[in-house]
Amino acid sequence: MSGPVNVRLSDDGKAVIIVDQSALPGELRYLRLETLDEMYEAVKTLRVRGAPAIGVFAGFALCALSAGMDKDADFKNRFLEAAERLSSSRPTAVNLSWACRRMTEACSRAICSGSEIDAALLAECTSIYEEDVFMCSAISSYGLSLLKPGMGVLTHCNAGPLATSRYGTALGPLILAAEKGIPIRVYADETRPLLQGARLTAYELMEAGVDVTLICDDMASWVMSRGLVDACFVGCDTVALNGDTANKIGTSAVAILAKHYGIPFYVLGPTSTIDPSCRTGSDIRIEMRPWEEITSLYYSRPVAPEGVKCLNPSFDVTEASLISGIITQHGIALPPFEESLPALIKK
Amino acid sequence: MSGPVNVRLSDDGKAVIIVDQSALPGELRYLRLETLDEMYEAVKTLRVRGAPAIGVFAGFALCALSAGMDKDADFKNRFLEAAERLSSSRPTAVNLSWACRRMTEACSRAICSGSEIDAALLAECTSIYEEDVFMCSAISSYGLSLLKPGMGVLTHCNAGPLATSRYGTALGPLILAAEKGIPIRVYADETRPLLQGARLTAYELMEAGVDVTLICDDMASWVMSRGLVDACFVGCDTVALNGDTANKIGTSAVAILAKHYGIPFYVLGPTSTIDPSCRTGSDIRIEMRPWEEITSLYYSRPVAPEGVKCLNPSFDVTEASLISGIITQHGIALPPFEESLPALIKK
Repeated sequence: MSGPVNVRLSDDGKAVIIVDQSALPGELRYLRLETLDEMYEAVKTLRVRGAPAIGVFAGFALCALSAGMDKDADFKNRFLEAAERLSSSRPTAVNLSWACRRMTEACSRAICSGSEIDAALLAECTSIYEEDVFMCSAISSYGLSLLKPGMGVLTHCNAGPLATSRYGTALGPLILAAEKGIPIRVYADETRPLLQGARLTAYELMEAGVDVTLICDDMASWVMSRGLVDACFVGCDTVALNGDTANKIGTSAVAILAKHYGIPFYVLGPTSTIDPSCRTGSDIRIEMRPWEEITSLYYSRPVAPEGVKCLNPSFDVTEASLISGIITQHGIALPPFEESLPALIKK
Repeated sequence: MSGPVNVRLSDDGKAVIIVDQSALPGELRYLRLETLDEMYEAVKTLRVRGAPAIGVFAGFALCALSAGMDKDADFKNRFLEAAERLSSSRPTAVNLSWACRRMTEACSRAICSGSEIDAALLAECTSIYEEDVFMCSAISSYGLSLLKPGMGVLTHCNAGPLATSRYGTALGPLILAAEKGIPIRVYADETRPLLQGARLTAYELMEAGVDVTLICDDMASWVMSRGLVDACFVGCDTVALNGDTANKIGTSAVAILAKHYGIPFYVLGPTSTIDPSCRTGSDIRIEMRPWEEITSLYYSRPVAPEGVKCLNPSFDVTEASLISGIITQHGIALPPFEESLPALIKK
């Protein structure tokens, strides 16, 4: 398992180093982020993205910010404000607020118990990172158990190493299969508007030696109709308690197509993605993004008439009834998810 | 009904004048095509596109080519060769071969009966054009009968005035509604890889005063799930006798989504699109196009890793069971299409 480390704490502990995912696949560019504004912008503009990765990023970011703050009477307020601002940078991915909450709780505990704050925060963000590494390996192994040599797998968006700390979630089993010499064909949706599938998934799978074929999102029905797809693997940004799953816009369409063609559809993600405050998908808030992402084709030349009205939802919700299984680090939840998911959270 | 005339015979009768659809919406550029090579290239690279429009184009093109040919002993062979070459420029759209066949038959009849060849060809291509104008008006009226004020209609690709001689097929009822002051909301899929929805449909509907919202193809499920879509209107390139319909890649996905959300899905096109030689959709040949259309985002900067493998089918087949009705110039065919379509062809 090689490839760039996408998110890490700087050696001096005062910054986060990230791979700028918006520059891929053309350029492998590292950024050093020191201020809250830089960190907020990096999440907002998807320089760092992927639900697990932005959780890990938030941990490192708050640790680095704390290291630069005076530990005076106002420290806790300033730290909580920073966590809240960072948490608001992307509303749908639950891992972001989850990681920010873990860091603020660790901060509070350290203050109450009189222990060294920065050391406590470093321990907490290191835990978040290490749990993510473990989570990816476990999800990859569970996912691999569903694959047979020669199978075709369709994926949407990017839930690979760049979106996590290692292996990835939806791409994890595919990369693990390549490591073990098991031949799997992968069809990667390009994933408009920001093309994470074309830019990141195709890049990561080619780097890992996986047989990947890039298609436009509107070609998924065609490849399924030709019998080329045996399973769909996608990541997730928020999973409601009934199994309804918010993931990159277009995921619900893949699930509906898969059901039509009789193809199993799996969601892969850590249990931290399950949001106990969301009973169903209708409780999940969907982020709306700028129209220019659609009209200017990844900010190159304009392709739509000036002044055209757009809709640009960043996520959609896949109904639980369309999901064959939810693959977590603690095992595979099967329908009915109202029963299987709470059992997994407790593990 | 205003807007540019997209295909016409030049005043001297020796060339075809087209709107270069590949330059829209940035530029309204007219091209004068005089040679078979220029004409072949214009169809192949989608400078002129839309199943009805390339039928009309083929008529005018063969008329113009004939006008420039000596009417010697070898004329018929040269004319047939030109028709065959033009007919091969795009394999899926049945209107192209249908129009070429009408022109070669008109040519043969004129030679047999000793009448003036160029005059006979001019009469035939003018008929094809005028029938298309009538066809668009009739389809638009039949389609309009299905619309009520305030409805939302989703469309894929472009089946508007640019794809036909007037009004269009799928867009015809929407433009007619705007002319009559009936408010309809339209959601236009951008239609990757060549973005006919963003570049052409959004442009034409805005010009016609229709309330249009542009979305990426993978957002169709989202707008449907929000209750924003009451019907889907799409064009067609080939309809098999059982109602299976080949249209721009992604159309079958729209139909499957529509069925999932309980939304009626209508195909609009002239009866010339029905191919009696295709019993079902599996008899329809699907054109595969260059990978660069996917990897270079409409030939601007690269967005996928160099050397990535792609699939780029230009069309897909929508199963008849997903289609609520096929709206033609002779009326609306309802399932079972095996019975309703042959009845319409005879009209």
